[in-house]
Amino acid sequence: MITVLQSLKQAVLQANLALPQYGLVTFTWGNVSGIDRDQGLVVIKPSGVPYPQLTIDDLVVLNLEGAIVEGRLKPSSDTPTHLELYRNFPDIGGIVHTHSSWATSWAQAGRGIPALGTTHGDYFYGEVPCTRKMTATEINGAYEWETGRVIVETFQERDPNQIPGVLVHSHAPFCWGKDPDDAVHHAVVLEEVAKMAYRSYVLNSGLTPMDQTLLDRHFLRKHGKKAYYGQV
Amino acid sequence: MITVLQSLKQAVLQANLALPQYGLVTFTWGNVSGIDRDQGLVVIKPSGVPYPQLTIDDLVVLNLEGAIVEGRLKPSSDTPTHLELYRNFPDIGGIVHTHSSWATSWAQAGRGIPALGTTHGDYFYGEVPCTRKMTATEINGAYEWETGRVIVETFQERDPNQIPGVLVHSHAPFCWGKDPDDAVHHAVVLEEVAKMAYRSYVLNSGLTPMDQTLLDRHFLRKHGKKAYYGQV
Amino acid sequence: MITVLQSLKQAVLQANLALPQYGLVTFTWGNVSGIDRDQGLVVIKPSGVPYPQLTIDDLVVLNLEGAIVEGRLKPSSDTPTHLELYRNFPDIGGIVHTHSSWATSWAQAGRGIPALGTTHGDYFYGEVPCTRKMTATEINGAYEWETGRVIVETFQERDPNQIPGVLVHSHAPFCWGKDPDDAVHHAVVLEEVAKMAYRSYVLNSGLTPMDQTLLDRHFLRKHGKKAYYGQV
Amino acid sequence: MITVLQSLKQAVLQANLALPQYGLVTFTWGNVSGIDRDQGLVVIKPSGVPYPQLTIDDLVVLNLEGAIVEGRLKPSSDTPTHLELYRNFPDIGGIVHTHSSWATSWAQAGRGIPALGTTHGDYFYGEVPCTRKMTATEINGAYEWETGRVIVETFQERDPNQIPGVLVHSHAPFCWGKDPDDAVHHAVVLEEVAKMAYRSYVLNSGLTPMDQTLLDRHFLRKHGKKAYYGQV
Repeated sequence: MITVLQSLKQAVLQANLALPQYGLVTFTWGNVSGIDRDQGLVVIKPSGVPYPQLTIDDLVVLNLEGAIVEGRLKPSSDTPTHLELYRNFPDIGGIVHTHSSWATSWAQAGRGIPALGTTHGDYFYGEVPCTRKMTATEINGAYEWETGRVIVETFQERDPNQIPGVLVHSHAPFCWGKDPDDAVHHAVVLEEVAKMAYRSYVLNSGLTPMDQTLLDRHFLRKHGKKAYYGQV
Repeated sequence: MITVLQSLKQAVLQANLALPQYGLVTFTWGNVSGIDRDQGLVVIKPSGVPYPQLTIDDLVVLNLEGAIVEGRLKPSSDTPTHLELYRNFPDIGGIVHTHSSWATSWAQAGRGIPALGTTHGDYFYGEVPCTRKMTATEINGAYEWETGRVIVETFQERDPNQIPGVLVHSHAPFCWGKDPDDAVHHAVVLEEVAKMAYRSYVLNSGLTPMDQTLLDRHFLRKHGKKAYYGQV
Repeated sequence: MITVLQSLKQAVLQANLALPQYGLVTFTWGNVSGIDRDQGLVVIKPSGVPYPQLTIDDLVVLNLEGAIVEGRLKPSSDTPTHLELYRNFPDIGGIVHTHSSWATSWAQAGRGIPALGTTHGDYFYGEVPCTRKMTATEINGAYEWETGRVIVETFQERDPNQIPGVLVHSHAPFCWGKDPDDAVHHAVVLEEVAKMAYRSYVLNSGLTPMDQTLLDRHFLRKHGKKAYYGQV
Repeated sequence: MITVLQSLKQAVLQANLALPQYGLVTFTWGNVSGIDRDQGLVVIKPSGVPYPQLTIDDLVVLNLEGAIVEGRLKPSSDTPTHLELYRNFPDIGGIVHTHSSWATSWAQAGRGIPALGTTHGDYFYGEVPCTRKMTATEINGAYEWETGRVIVETFQERDPNQIPGVLVHSHAPFCWGKDPDDAVHHAVVLEEVAKMAYRSYVLNSGLTPMDQTLLDRHFLRKHGKKAYYGQV
């Protein structure tokens, strides 16, 4: 009989292995986690382990306060960021962090990615925001936890369920979703959207965001009670 | 004995499977249809089914009014757009819709792709146009059908047989051809042409369309009675 | 015993098949030829035959006046261009034409590719020129032959042995070399050089060509009597 | 029993073969060397040998003065550059030279790559500098050795252990590391960083380098006594 935790580990392993398959990571620059809300347990990639040699037994299990419950390796150095997001975004079940090149280029430019077309609107209900710069105090303090805090601050007026991703200023993207696989799905979409928005701006430097009515139509075609895309 | 419909289904399946092979789609962001003009039947991809698991039995058969004739799955949500194009462009036999990244970048920028060279002129007899923005009424109404209508409107003064593709504003491209395979062929060419035109503009921002005589020569070298390219 | 012509056919076949392997062609957008100077015979790809199904028996053999000597298929529609180059550039043994995307983007922009670095200088002794626009008379006349003539005109003050390639305005590149394989080699280099020059200009729009002394050093390190690169 | 030199040769072979796998080289445009500091012996790729046919017996062993100790082939024409770097950067154990396209585009533009984000800061503690242009005397003299000298000059006020790479003006990058594999690792990172910095500048032409505090944090998270990334 497979326990819920065993099943979550399997999902987290698969989601981590999907990152190089989708071309989202170079070397070990990425990590995926998943959460079992009932038990309050988070499963995450260990720090610095190359994807080709990652096995299910390498994964680390922590509680929401960051105490290691299971695993013989150190968790990802970004673990405190993941935990802060799980504590503040109660509906999410998986988180992915990468340095995928298009999204990271926007993060380095310090610009959010505006909704410019229906590809964006099918997944992100408005601009994918870029956080403010972190302060010296935040950087010199509990840096990875503060990274989570600045993301949460960025979503004070936004719904993380409707905009499942963010760019951390001068750093790179974080995405999330209802489970680890869904988070990776959003990371793939974000990269594609970041690439196309870059090119659209080069073609039309005065470009403004897409029509709000069209954005509503596309996002709601795939999300919420009136969704009619797909087979369900 | 293979019926005409069975043969069309096979062609539609192959054309759909060609989309990921040509790198034109991410996830399920694309669909191909084909039409049997004699029977007035359209075969199209089902909505939201991933390409790796798509089989011939998943395809949906509809008449030109949109009534499902065969198939146990919901057709692509873009079906009303396809049907509107088949009703108005009587010579076309296949349609493909993707969010291929270069063409979509132009669509998001709201710009048509001018003919800048012979690669373009070999397939598209002039600019690949971008539609006008859709109105709130159109978007909130029968949106996918209205998308077809705005495409048809864009071709009021153009010949869809000579320009087998269009960019839908803030959305993505549709292409067509004499059959599903030909439509995919045009979608591949459009992506290539969109990529090169982007780069040519970056190299020369004051660029004007290619010489009309050269465009005539190349398009007519491959199309019409005086064509002399290839083995026929 | 393999004849010289048989051996040339094999070289032309291999060189044609290398084009899709190097990512230089989409569909049938390219062709390679080779010449046996002693017999005055040119071997070239047939028109419109897809690379995956191309065999040695599909190749067409012509004399320098364009009369077909051997082969059951029509030669590439660009054959008159190849022949004109062989007639005027007596040292070359192979020619390749593609619509490779980076070089074609420069051709569409109507700009030659200046020597910006040693990668360029290792193969092309100065700017890869772009031809002038062709006149309506040239386009409406023996177009493919006139294309060859405008290339030859472009090299009136240039040495085709030191600059083994050209961009045809609003069209695409032609490259050549001592044999078909060498011509393909130059086509690969041209594409790489075109890509890097594009990006260098974006990073520094006021960029001027590289130092002439450095260009001399690199070109002569690989070519001529004082070459010292490689094992010979 | 495998000798130290045999083991170094194996490492140099693997590192050379990794270059095409990482997409860093076209044809033979790259080379990796490694050094055995105890014996003062350098192992390097032979000149102009294609990667697919490179074997361990093709490698050339030289002393730090450039005398060939072992090997039947000519060493890479860039050998004097490698030797000059080994003589002046006492802590490095491997060097890689490529014409990788993104880094080379910056070198051709004559611009160093500023630190714009944490991906950069994790590996390079500040700007990856571009050398000054070489003088005619340097180019016409012992050119490859002078290339090494201008790199060393560029690091007069920089620590090569903290910035393990450089762009040679109008030429291409050199990277180094504690061993050949580490040098290749830095070459891969440099290419990724060059790509993202290019795009960030296009998105924000007024971009300034990243916050120094953030750069300190990321570099020191992975390097030095207080490093806490990975499993050690």
